[in-house]
Amino acid sequence: MTSQESPDDPQHPPTLRVLQTAVDDWITQWDEGYWPPLANLARLTEEVGELARLLNRAYGPKVAKDAPEPDTREAIRDEIGDILFVVITLANDLDIDLGATLIETLEKYEVRDADRWTPRND
Amino acid sequence: MTSQESPDDPQHPPTLRVLQTAVDDWITQWDEGYWPPLANLARLTEEVGELARLLNRAYGPKVAKDAPEPDTREAIRDEIGDILFVVITLANDLDIDLGATLIETLEKYEVRDADRWTPRND
Amino acid sequence: MTSQESPDDPQHPPTLRVLQTAVDDWITQWDEGYWPPLANLARLTEEVGELARLLNRAYGPKVAKDAPEPDTREAIRDEIGDILFVVITLANDLDIDLGATLIETLEKYEVRDADRWTPRND
Amino acid sequence: MTSQESPDDPQHPPTLRVLQTAVDDWITQWDEGYWPPLANLARLTEEVGELARLLNRAYGPKVAKDAPEPDTREAIRDEIGDILFVVITLANDLDIDLGATLIETLEKYEVRDADRWTPRND
Repeated sequence: MTSQESPDDPQHPPTLRVLQTAVDDWITQWDEGYWPPLANLARLTEEVGELARLLNRAYGPKVAKDAPEPDTREAIRDEIGDILFVVITLANDLDIDLGATLIETLEKYEVRDADRWTPRND
Repeated sequence: MTSQESPDDPQHPPTLRVLQTAVDDWITQWDEGYWPPLANLARLTEEVGELARLLNRAYGPKVAKDAPEPDTREAIRDEIGDILFVVITLANDLDIDLGATLIETLEKYEVRDADRWTPRND
Repeated sequence: MTSQESPDDPQHPPTLRVLQTAVDDWITQWDEGYWPPLANLARLTEEVGELARLLNRAYGPKVAKDAPEPDTREAIRDEIGDILFVVITLANDLDIDLGATLIETLEKYEVRDADRWTPRND
Repeated sequence: MTSQESPDDPQHPPTLRVLQTAVDDWITQWDEGYWPPLANLARLTEEVGELARLLNRAYGPKVAKDAPEPDTREAIRDEIGDILFVVITLANDLDIDLGATLIETLEKYEVRDADRWTPRND
C-alpha cells in the first residue's frame, strides 16, 4: 500500500477498496474471523435498529424542534459508521467489490427510475 | 472532477467521496430531491429485508448445499449495492463524510474490542 | 380444545394462547420443524422490510394522497399477519407466553413512561 | 368489558382483541396519541434490532454455550413483548383485527406452502 492509499490521509480521501482492505485487516487479526452470513445480518439489523431509535428521536413525532442536538448528530454519524462497517464486512465475506457494485446500482437506477421522478427544471 | 476521480475508471477505484458526489448528482437532478430521514430509514429497512430473504435462502435452514447459486450471489450483490446507496443517501442528507467516519469507527473498535476477541497466533 | 377455543369462530375471538397453539400445530406437521433463532430473525427482518416498502409507498414522500388504495391497505394487513406469525414462531420456540408478556410490557410502560407523555385533558 | 375479558386474569388467557383494546386504552390516554405510520415503523425497526442483538449474543457465533443465561432469556422475552406492542399499535392505527388476520395468514400458508416442506412421518 502506498502512502497515497493509506485510509487516514485527509489529503487523499480513501477509496472503498482501501477501506474494504482496512476492515479485512481488522477482522483477520482475530481467531474468530468473519462471522457466518446470518450472524452478520443480525448485526446489521441491530445497527439499523439503533439508527432508527436516533432518527425517530431527532426527526420523529417525539420532538418539536427543527434540527437535532449536536450530541444526537454525532451519535447518528457514529451509528452510520457502524452500519457501513457491517456492510463492508458482508461484502468482504462474499467477495464483493463495493465501489464497482455501487456504480452498477447507479446505472440500474438510471434505467429503472427514468420515468419515476420529475426532472428538475432550473 | 479530474478523470482520475471518475467513479467508473477501473484503473482508479473510486473514493467514497466521489461516490457520495455521484449519488448526490443523481438525487438532485430530480424535483423530489432527498427524502425525509424517516422515509430514507424505511427504505433502508426495506433493502435490508430483501438481503435477509436472500441470505436466509442461500445460507439458512432451507437449503443443504454449501455455496449459493450464481444467480443468488448476483442478487445478493445487487441488494448490497441498494443498501450502500441508501446509506450514502442518508450520509449526504446529514452532511456526513463516510470515509472519515469509517476510519473513526475502526479506531473506536480498536479501543472497545481490544479484549473482546482472540488474537490470531500464526 | 372446546369449540369455544377454535381459532376461527367469529363469535369468540381467539386468545393468543390458542393462536400460539395453531402456529405450533402448523409448524410441527413438517419434518423441518422450527428454524434456528437467527433464521427466524432473518425472516422477521424480511417481513418488516416488506411492511416498510408498503408503508413508505402509502404514507411516505412518494405519494400526495391522504389515504392508501384498498389494495395497498389489504397488502399491509397481509404483511402484518406475516410479521405476527414470525413473532409467534419465535415466542413458541423460546417457550414464551405472548399474552402474559404483553401484559407485563404494558405494566412496564406504565412505570417507565409515566412522565414521558402528556395526559389527555378532555 | 366483563371480568372474563380482563387482560390479566390467568384463568382466562386474553384474546388478541382484548389486548388490542388494552393497547388502545394506553395510547389514547395521552395527548400525543398514535404516531404516524413511518414513526411506528422506525420503532418496530428499533425493537427488532434490540432482539437481533440479544439473539446474536445468545445463539450466534460469539458464544459456545448451548442455552442462554436466564437473564438473557428474560431480556429476549421482554424484547418480544416490545415488538408485539408495536405490531398491535400499527394494527390498531390501521383498523386491523389481528386475530382474524393471523387466521387468514395460516390459511394462506396452507395453500402456498403445501409442497414446500416435508410432512412428518411418525
